[in-house]
Amino acid sequence: MPTFKLTLAYDGTNFSGWQFQPQRRTVQGVLRTAWEKITGEAVQTSASSRTDAGVHARRQVVGVRSQTHLTPDVLFRAINANLPEDVVLVDIEFASEQFHATHHAIGKHYRYSIHNDRTRPLFERDFFWHVPKPLDTDAMQRAGQLLVGTHDFTSFQSAGSERESTVRTITFLAVERGRGDSAGCVEINIEGGGFLYNMVRIIVGSLVDVGLGRRDPSWLAEVLAARDRRVAGKTAPPQGLCLMRVDYPPGPALSSPPESS
Amino acid sequence: MPTFKLTLAYDGTNFSGWQFQPQRRTVQGVLRTAWEKITGEAVQTSASSRTDAGVHARRQVVGVRSQTHLTPDVLFRAINANLPEDVVLVDIEFASEQFHATHHAIGKHYRYSIHNDRTRPLFERDFFWHVPKPLDTDAMQRAGQLLVGTHDFTSFQSAGSERESTVRTITFLAVERGRGDSAGCVEINIEGGGFLYNMVRIIVGSLVDVGLGRRDPSWLAEVLAARDRRVAGKTAPPQGLCLMRVDYPPGPALSSPPESS
Repeated sequence: MPTFKLTLAYDGTNFSGWQFQPQRRTVQGVLRTAWEKITGEAVQTSASSRTDAGVHARRQVVGVRSQTHLTPDVLFRAINANLPEDVVLVDIEFASEQFHATHHAIGKHYRYSIHNDRTRPLFERDFFWHVPKPLDTDAMQRAGQLLVGTHDFTSFQSAGSERESTVRTITFLAVERGRGDSAGCVEINIEGGGFLYNMVRIIVGSLVDVGLGRRDPSWLAEVLAARDRRVAGKTAPPQGLCLMRVDYPPGPALSSPPESS
Repeated sequence: MPTFKLTLAYDGTNFSGWQFQPQRRTVQGVLRTAWEKITGEAVQTSASSRTDAGVHARRQVVGVRSQTHLTPDVLFRAINANLPEDVVLVDIEFASEQFHATHHAIGKHYRYSIHNDRTRPLFERDFFWHVPKPLDTDAMQRAGQLLVGTHDFTSFQSAGSERESTVRTITFLAVERGRGDSAGCVEINIEGGGFLYNMVRIIVGSLVDVGLGRRDPSWLAEVLAARDRRVAGKTAPPQGLCLMRVDYPPGPALSSPPESS
């Protein structure tokens, strides 16, 4: 059966997250509705990441297996014409029949944005966490480096998640303050092989504790070692978080056209 | 009576414009409500510009005459605590009793933002006009220079407006395309002494006709000479427009504290 790899961008503000729920407005729900309207077919979809309510995505990757004979180009226009204004289909291409957006992802890039200014955010209010007191971003950057590498991130996982292993690898973490007109904007970019439930938001909440001087940067090592969610900082609010990019292994296995279509 | 000069930023998306209207959500309305809640006083306000529904402001200037004995610092915090999330009081200071935000303005800077990309705007959808076909910004820039100077802008004024003179002076007009990741963003910055009703949006609509190749840049001179609204391009949609700054004469006349308070 033809399998498609879709790349979606969405403004998560008015969604109850990615995952389909009856009676709720979800990204998966509106994508399924658009697909069914075009092809008449109710499809199953897999996403690289089940983003929470209020969380945004610039390049969420979704796998769709479908009987459709429509080409990716035709689907691109038809789906975009049938999606609401807060979701955009950025790209669609054929994938191998085995493609699964969740299982095959090998890397993800998340960005968390903080409005670090006395004045509350206006145009940015749905995309930033407002932290009015000045953040020491150098201390946050030092603290963040203690998380880079392969660790047991149990302390940075929300209760209720059921992952087999809590060991994850963070390959990159950078805390940067904007310049000039953007001096009130602090961005935290985190890349890794995969993340536990709420892991990025708990890391951000903990880094902000350091940035406000409530904790020393070295505290992050203690939090890691404790393997206890209660030791870490609070979960940062969802609207600052954005899934920026998902990586898959290169090669034809994930991008070849179907054998017959 | 103490007179205050307020600087307001707002996201115009969910407002029926600046001007108070019964039963409608307006920026003037929510400002009056906040002021009355704090001081118990129903005040008259003057604004530099009566922005339309959907139009935004980064530094709208508003004059308020009030009997209050509260200081600007106290008012700053109290007003911000009582304004909705889509309006922010950026600054408040004492002005001379004669200060009138409309009549004393000597210059304004407007920015109009265009999303010039095949893909529709997502995070920017409330702040940009979507023009999918490529715009020739060099031609638009050349055309725009024909409007700089003092002219009769009758052709660029919406019907129904009743200004005594239709002569206005544009001191600066620049059409610029972003670079790198912002290559799909075209900004038109216009500065002048004052503007007729819908003048900026009709200028933008006409420049886009040039940018799409429907008209030569020299056409703008014909439009000016015609003094007929029907000759110009269509009025660009409101959400791309933002009032960036308003200038007043320097000196103590507009910024001195009241004689007794």
